Amino acid sequence: MAKALLTPRAVDFPRWYQDVIAKAELAENGPARGSMVIRPTGYALWERMQRELDDRIKAAGAANAYFPLLIPESYLRREAEHVEGFSPELAVVTIGGGKQLEEPLVIRPTSETVIGESMARWVESYRDLPLLLNQWSNVVRWELRPRLFLRTTEFLWQEGHTAHVSEADARDYARDYARRILHDVYEDVLVNVLSLPVVVGRKTVRERFAGATSTYTLEAMMGDGKALQMGTSHELGQNFARAFGIDYLAASGQRELAWTTSWGITTRLVGGIVMAHGDDLGLRVPPRLAPVQVAVLMVKEGNGVAEVARRLTAALQGAGVRVMLDERVDVPFGRRAIDAELKGYPVRIEVGPRDVADSRVMVVRRVTGERTAVPVDSVASLVPSALEADQKALYEEALAEQKRRTAEVTSLSEVIEAASTGWARLPWSAVGSEGEAELNAQGITVRCLVRADGGVPGSEDEPDLMAVVGRAY
Amino acid sequence: MAKALLTPRAVDFPRWYQDVIAKAELAENGPARGSMVIRPTGYALWERMQRELDDRIKAAGAANAYFPLLIPESYLRREAEHVEGFSPELAVVTIGGGKQLEEPLVIRPTSETVIGESMARWVESYRDLPLLLNQWSNVVRWELRPRLFLRTTEFLWQEGHTAHVSEADARDYARDYARRILHDVYEDVLVNVLSLPVVVGRKTVRERFAGATSTYTLEAMMGDGKALQMGTSHELGQNFARAFGIDYLAASGQRELAWTTSWGITTRLVGGIVMAHGDDLGLRVPPRLAPVQVAVLMVKEGNGVAEVARRLTAALQGAGVRVMLDERVDVPFGRRAIDAELKGYPVRIEVGPRDVADSRVMVVRRVTGERTAVPVDSVASLVPSALEADQKALYEEALAEQKRRTAEVTSLSEVIEAASTGWARLPWSAVGSEGEAELNAQGITVRCLVRADGGVPGSEDEPDLMAVVGRAY
Repeated sequence: MAKALLTPRAVDFPRWYQDVIAKAELAENGPARGSMVIRPTGYALWERMQRELDDRIKAAGAANAYFPLLIPESYLRREAEHVEGFSPELAVVTIGGGKQLEEPLVIRPTSETVIGESMARWVESYRDLPLLLNQWSNVVRWELRPRLFLRTTEFLWQEGHTAHVSEADARDYARDYARRILHDVYEDVLVNVLSLPVVVGRKTVRERFAGATSTYTLEAMMGDGKALQMGTSHELGQNFARAFGIDYLAASGQRELAWTTSWGITTRLVGGIVMAHGDDLGLRVPPRLAPVQVAVLMVKEGNGVAEVARRLTAALQGAGVRVMLDERVDVPFGRRAIDAELKGYPVRIEVGPRDVADSRVMVVRRVTGERTAVPVDSVASLVPSALEADQKALYEEALAEQKRRTAEVTSLSEVIEAASTGWARLPWSAVGSEGEAELNAQGITVRCLVRADGGVPGSEDEPDLMAVVGRAY
Repeated sequence: MAKALLTPRAVDFPRWYQDVIAKAELAENGPARGSMVIRPTGYALWERMQRELDDRIKAAGAANAYFPLLIPESYLRREAEHVEGFSPELAVVTIGGGKQLEEPLVIRPTSETVIGESMARWVESYRDLPLLLNQWSNVVRWELRPRLFLRTTEFLWQEGHTAHVSEADARDYARDYARRILHDVYEDVLVNVLSLPVVVGRKTVRERFAGATSTYTLEAMMGDGKALQMGTSHELGQNFARAFGIDYLAASGQRELAWTTSWGITTRLVGGIVMAHGDDLGLRVPPRLAPVQVAVLMVKEGNGVAEVARRLTAALQGAGVRVMLDERVDVPFGRRAIDAELKGYPVRIEVGPRDVADSRVMVVRRVTGERTAVPVDSVASLVPSALEADQKALYEEALAEQKRRTAEVTSLSEVIEAASTGWARLPWSAVGSEGEAELNAQGITVRCLVRADGGVPGSEDEPDLMAVVGRAY
């Protein structure tokens, strides 16, 4: 019944993605090249992600703070690898208050340097450690091939920065913390809220963050078989502590350099759920994430439709469901139903005069497409379990797809073939850094290294590691 | 007992303010001139304000969205008064991705223009109105005389932008909406959460926002008798709609220009509660706002102090209180008690070995300074009502101070005298725009106009208006 508003995924996946972003009113291009306007429907998704992440970040003991947007150019030069990594992407303010500035200011591409400098001032003794900070903010990295949510010149993110004591066992504490964020914050939200099966692993030396000693990553498979890096957590060793002078008086009476970590997740997550869960009718939002879990649509006036729709809405709210009532009977019903599909509301309830006459309403589930007539009085008790079931169904579907499209191989030539439709898994010993360079030349990257049992390696030199390899956004 | 860590307010109020901000660890200067690092203690206050405001903004029907940081210079020129207002304050990006930009990009001093341009695209018919948008973001306005929280080159804020239909009765709707935000969002949060008595009124033509037809304001009195503008709500008439082409197909079939509003509140609110409620021992945070309502301090180990402190903490959490447990017995107790005072936690509970032996703890209330020994088992039931009482006490104290320092006068010369210690109220007819210019020359401004009964005027030409006049931050 629904006219194909979107380019089918199988025909042209990137075009389908653009179509969904536009028609579901998630975002659009801003006036300056590479910039993005995040519309209310898209921003509400980000807000819900933020809330879920922020609760867990706070539970992990980190406190939010805010550091300046504008950073003196000289700050970035303090950590050599860091400035090398970011130089080509910088936006530079040269005029302020009508005057040429003596020292240009860079718009933060990350706050690593200014936070490092603050930590150096705030940390005096071991009692001040660990120092666990997080920031929600915008950052700017000049983007030559922008794509909404996935690569934009300005994006929103969360960046955590922590400093830890450096005694032998405490080095592990910095590592433990980077991994705690990886699993208890990021993996938990991705799997349990966003319904995304992720491969959690370690980046190779070639792929890791400039200045880090270890980079851990969470990789999800998109609807076209490509990978999207959903978040990263870095151990920075003592590199940043050395560059910024983050040292402290240890219990021993000696001054010691701290060990630091950083970790971040960005608005690309919104693009990730579009590409992982979307279908040819539009977005499918995981119920636990959904800002609108249920849309109650009045089909048209008559037979007390408005009264039933309002009563249902109140009953669902009472059951703890996030519900939106659509009373716009002056807009054609078909258009509103298609819009609800495009925006991926997990459940749509249609209340029309005939339904009301039969004391029933139509309940349409976005994930399964199932359409059921449900007695009005049963709706509020039925919906919460349907939402939970669909949360799980989305995850299972994505996991089955990830498995189906991941080839277990043993040689580089097989990788290249597998990467045209999905991922490949093979022994890291069969790749190595030479093989990695070879793959990179083909546009294929090692997404991460994992242990045979799926665990996250402590080093890339561990025996029997597996490499997960594919094309990526 | 507490050593004077702060310059007394009576000696040097601006210095006292700086001292509190530093010693309570609210914020500090950033590396670039005029920039600010908001430390966790300060940011937690802003986060709580955000949450309270955001809940009410959503209840008023506005949806959050996000618009780009960087705006082409040409955009600002579209509304003549607007560009004139902001030109001297702009930060301009001239280099991006290593190259000189063809058109420089301005860091948003407000998003008025880019949102206006988006609204023009999003609004087609009367069915798309009202369009009610809000954004939480950072903005940059070059500041020559920066002061932490009060005037910083970069600040955080919320800016709401709405468009409404333009039929005769609907013009009132735009006005109603600007006033709804003023009262139901801003005044409600300021009075009932921040314990701030505010004078809510109308700005004179001279003081109103560039491009607005009406600016409404909420003015609070600081501890030195000066005014701080806490938030504003503007009716923009059709000025921005005309400049950006925000028109729509009316039910009549005619194309009509929309009527728009905008409204904002910033991180200066944090400075406002410091200056309105602080005393010579530091900050006093209103309990409903406080991120930490109760700090439970273990004085030292012994007699099962830790066990009692943890049980108390859990009991308070169970009673819905935001509580922090301070177990750092290796830091001198006096230092921690002073720190709790500086940070203005509404209630401090001291748990020492002797207290525990007597099955009692010391409960110290920050607002009144009251120190009471309370049986351990009574604490959790007693604290919530103490918090509510102190919330009210802070408001009453500030209101009494505002009344005491507001002189009812009839002439300009009396105003000038009154403004050295507080505000003056006098008939607007005794001031007029000539009198206003005269006062401005003395550094005194008309904070707002109010009706004799305290109501907010619809125009400055209404009869019998009163002007509230004073020095301001």
